[in-house]
Amino acid sequence: MSLTEVPIQRDLQAERRAAAEVFRAGLTRQGILCLNLISSPGAGKTTLLQAMAKYWEGRRRMAVLVGDIATDRDAQRLAPFVPVRQLTTGGACHLELPLVERGLGELDLEGLEFLVIENVGNLVCPASHDLGEHLRVVVLSVTEGDDKPGKYPKAFRTSQACVINKADLLPHVPFSIEAATADAHLVQPGLPVFTVSAWRETGIAEWCAFLEAARATMLTSATE
Amino acid sequence: MSLTEVPIQRDLQAERRAAAEVFRAGLTRQGILCLNLISSPGAGKTTLLQAMAKYWEGRRRMAVLVGDIATDRDAQRLAPFVPVRQLTTGGACHLELPLVERGLGELDLEGLEFLVIENVGNLVCPASHDLGEHLRVVVLSVTEGDDKPGKYPKAFRTSQACVINKADLLPHVPFSIEAATADAHLVQPGLPVFTVSAWRETGIAEWCAFLEAARATMLTSATE
Repeated sequence: MSLTEVPIQRDLQAERRAAAEVFRAGLTRQGILCLNLISSPGAGKTTLLQAMAKYWEGRRRMAVLVGDIATDRDAQRLAPFVPVRQLTTGGACHLELPLVERGLGELDLEGLEFLVIENVGNLVCPASHDLGEHLRVVVLSVTEGDDKPGKYPKAFRTSQACVINKADLLPHVPFSIEAATADAHLVQPGLPVFTVSAWRETGIAEWCAFLEAARATMLTSATE
Repeated sequence: MSLTEVPIQRDLQAERRAAAEVFRAGLTRQGILCLNLISSPGAGKTTLLQAMAKYWEGRRRMAVLVGDIATDRDAQRLAPFVPVRQLTTGGACHLELPLVERGLGELDLEGLEFLVIENVGNLVCPASHDLGEHLRVVVLSVTEGDDKPGKYPKAFRTSQACVINKADLLPHVPFSIEAATADAHLVQPGLPVFTVSAWRETGIAEWCAFLEAARATMLTSATE
């Protein structure tokens, strides 16, 4: 049997890139800074969002779209703190923009300043999908080992910030903040790295200040 | 533009299933029990293999094929302990059989009793690919949280054993062995669960005894 020639009628990649740009520009106009949180399962994304929500309570308005393969456990955890919608992929290993758009349609955007998309726990596949975010943030927990940036380079190369989480466990695990940072900088020189313990709520002020500054820059750029 | 009809000339899924069965049968004939280790990045697969190699030293012969997206760091770690080949996927989020077969061709199989395929760190995609293993083993570390089986059900539903690792960190993290086991059993009733600390080398004897028994059963079944 011979191969069949299939005419390529649409450039799906280009269509997706264009849709992400439209989504991002819409959020920029509304003054909403959008983050796409990427990490291994259990690196502490949801706990980090809880800590951020508590830190910003009464001062900054954040909403969350939380992606999971199954269950609405993360949305249940976040619901006491912030407006949240669960996006369930039903098996897929990463979020894609159409599901994010549907979730956003269910949120009240009035006065919103930060939108966080918590991706499916997966350090590989989400790095290949632009969700229309302004900042991609890779979260690495100290229990995973300081060799991970080089082993999962795309997540670290395509992110605009790295949060090293679970610093409270540093006394109990073989992990060097310096080695992990150096490895991340081999992949992407200058990548901003923040060390926090989301559970113990340390380092959150510095991380949130970075996000507030990023949003201020976005607002300034948008009006120029 | 209308959709173009593409004739399906080969059932690739069926071909892959058949290839995995051939691979598995070949290993069975040689008396080699093959494991496929699946987990999040940094759950401790490589450290578990180091602990198993030390436990079996001089008594059982094990070889390892270690999969990673980039770098040969894990093979470097394992080389002092066991025959090992690094399989580098160059970006792909899981191993597939042809790469495993190529790696196996470089190993000396004479007298080998256990072959372990350490998959790419990813709790999602590897669960969809049969590598011709006898036992799929999902490794969950206690730092990831005891809610993970329900959130990543396919890895727990398609595995024949679960290893809960990093038990040495139990005093420092909010994780219940009972809750994680119950959650795994909601996904797959009766799934054997072992608790170990690969780093501190606890629980390794029970885990290795399970594998020795599984190999003995395989040998008995093969000669019946």
